[in-house]
Amino acid sequence: LSDERDAFRYVHRVRFDEVDAAGIAYFARFFSWCHDAMASMLGQLEGGYRGLLAERRLGLPAVHVEADFASPLRFDDEVHITTVVERLGASSAAFLFRLDRTADGARVATIRHIHVLTDLASLRAVPLTDELRAVLGRHMSGGTS
Amino acid sequence: LSDERDAFRYVHRVRFDEVDAAGIAYFARFFSWCHDAMASMLGQLEGGYRGLLAERRLGLPAVHVEADFASPLRFDDEVHITTVVERLGASSAAFLFRLDRTADGARVATIRHIHVLTDLASLRAVPLTDELRAVLGRHMSGGTS
Amino acid sequence: LSDERDAFRYVHRVRFDEVDAAGIAYFARFFSWCHDAMASMLGQLEGGYRGLLAERRLGLPAVHVEADFASPLRFDDEVHITTVVERLGASSAAFLFRLDRTADGARVATIRHIHVLTDLASLRAVPLTDELRAVLGRHMSGGTS
Amino acid sequence: LSDERDAFRYVHRVRFDEVDAAGIAYFARFFSWCHDAMASMLGQLEGGYRGLLAERRLGLPAVHVEADFASPLRFDDEVHITTVVERLGASSAAFLFRLDRTADGARVATIRHIHVLTDLASLRAVPLTDELRAVLGRHMSGGTS
Repeated sequence: LSDERDAFRYVHRVRFDEVDAAGIAYFARFFSWCHDAMASMLGQLEGGYRGLLAERRLGLPAVHVEADFASPLRFDDEVHITTVVERLGASSAAFLFRLDRTADGARVATIRHIHVLTDLASLRAVPLTDELRAVLGRHMSGGTS
Repeated sequence: LSDERDAFRYVHRVRFDEVDAAGIAYFARFFSWCHDAMASMLGQLEGGYRGLLAERRLGLPAVHVEADFASPLRFDDEVHITTVVERLGASSAAFLFRLDRTADGARVATIRHIHVLTDLASLRAVPLTDELRAVLGRHMSGGTS
Repeated sequence: LSDERDAFRYVHRVRFDEVDAAGIAYFARFFSWCHDAMASMLGQLEGGYRGLLAERRLGLPAVHVEADFASPLRFDDEVHITTVVERLGASSAAFLFRLDRTADGARVATIRHIHVLTDLASLRAVPLTDELRAVLGRHMSGGTS
Repeated sequence: LSDERDAFRYVHRVRFDEVDAAGIAYFARFFSWCHDAMASMLGQLEGGYRGLLAERRLGLPAVHVEADFASPLRFDDEVHITTVVERLGASSAAFLFRLDRTADGARVATIRHIHVLTDLASLRAVPLTDELRAVLGRHMSGGTS
């Protein structure tokens, strides 16, 4: 990424119960951290992500996920998650998350998610709201807001 | 328990991601297994526990939990959970869960939960329904059905 | 897949705590279920997956994951996971998991994992053992055992 | 508690995947938050809790847990966890955790844990180390440091 000015930053420290029977952070947890980063970004919505869910009954289920894991993490390791929005579609948003270990700056994982704005009653896709488009647009790679 | 005829039986095998940074099954997971045993018992309701939640909008949040942990578990250990209902109140049910390792019969934990039937919209306690009372009554210690 | 004779079959029922704030099964859980299916397949090893981890100090961290989510799941939904091994490398194995809802046969998700046999002390890749190659080979797409 | 000067303070915000099929924070998660508060307190050890586990091969499994749940939590609610050490035994430490919702100060839960210092190889209790006794002693109710 040539331009990181607009990236969203989030920090996670590996919890005691996120380690698996092999003694390293369980791979599926990484997706939760990325989702937490997205939820934190959506805190910029009026009423937050919580308001979107509880009041407007809209959610953002994942429809596609890709991940490359470069380096394992141990209990209590801290990671920086740098998030950019790569694309906005009619109903969808594509996120790129880069995870780096704070201690040594090593790349830990590169993860992509596509989420679709969805009516939680009908479970059908709905167009991105203007406010959501504005908040996500602030964090587009290259900068577009 | 002098009389186990009416106990409800449930089996769990420790999953790969239930082990913590100390290399043993994480203590908070045990409560999930007990809750899963209760949910399985409630499968005897017409429409299941799912119907209670989704259609009647009633749930059974825990209001009290006690646990004694006697022996740690490793990845892939199998436990038998023997559940009895100890008491039924106006809105509440008290459960006793005994967890034993299948391989050697060792007592792993003794856990008690009190759950209260709750309207999920108002989050207020409501009286146990007749059907719930009947299903839980089948598994009372001493046998009452 | 034209040939499913050698696929490995595993069943999961969505647990009460696998549902998220949007009321559907949390997307990151799907990866755990696939990992559980792989762990179950590795139960065919002498000593099981547990023996590989505890005695030989070898593990199978994921290095790459891809997922397409087609249909959401609710609490208590049952899914069938059909697993085939797509490729075996020097140290790696590529798995394809297809998740179908039991009730209506709907495709729920298609997930791919690449896992690498790893020395858990040094965290370096090691060649697949003959026994691991044999067990995984039994479930190759097309059938190769 | 008449004296809170020495209590250890920790904050948690309910994550998206900590909500259950009833739409409230899953009860078993509360124990993880308390454990995270304890782990954070043990960050005062030289090398942290991580050093205790990885280098000294000592852990602190729970042997007893008690909880009263007073008020449910929703996604994104913030709780303050106030922790005091109630008793130190030869090998054990008794913790009291009070959880209060930040928004309105409501008591959410009162939880007690007893943890035992344990050799992770033999899984036997060992006497509390002097350093552990000193760190825990700083947070005793009544104030002892």
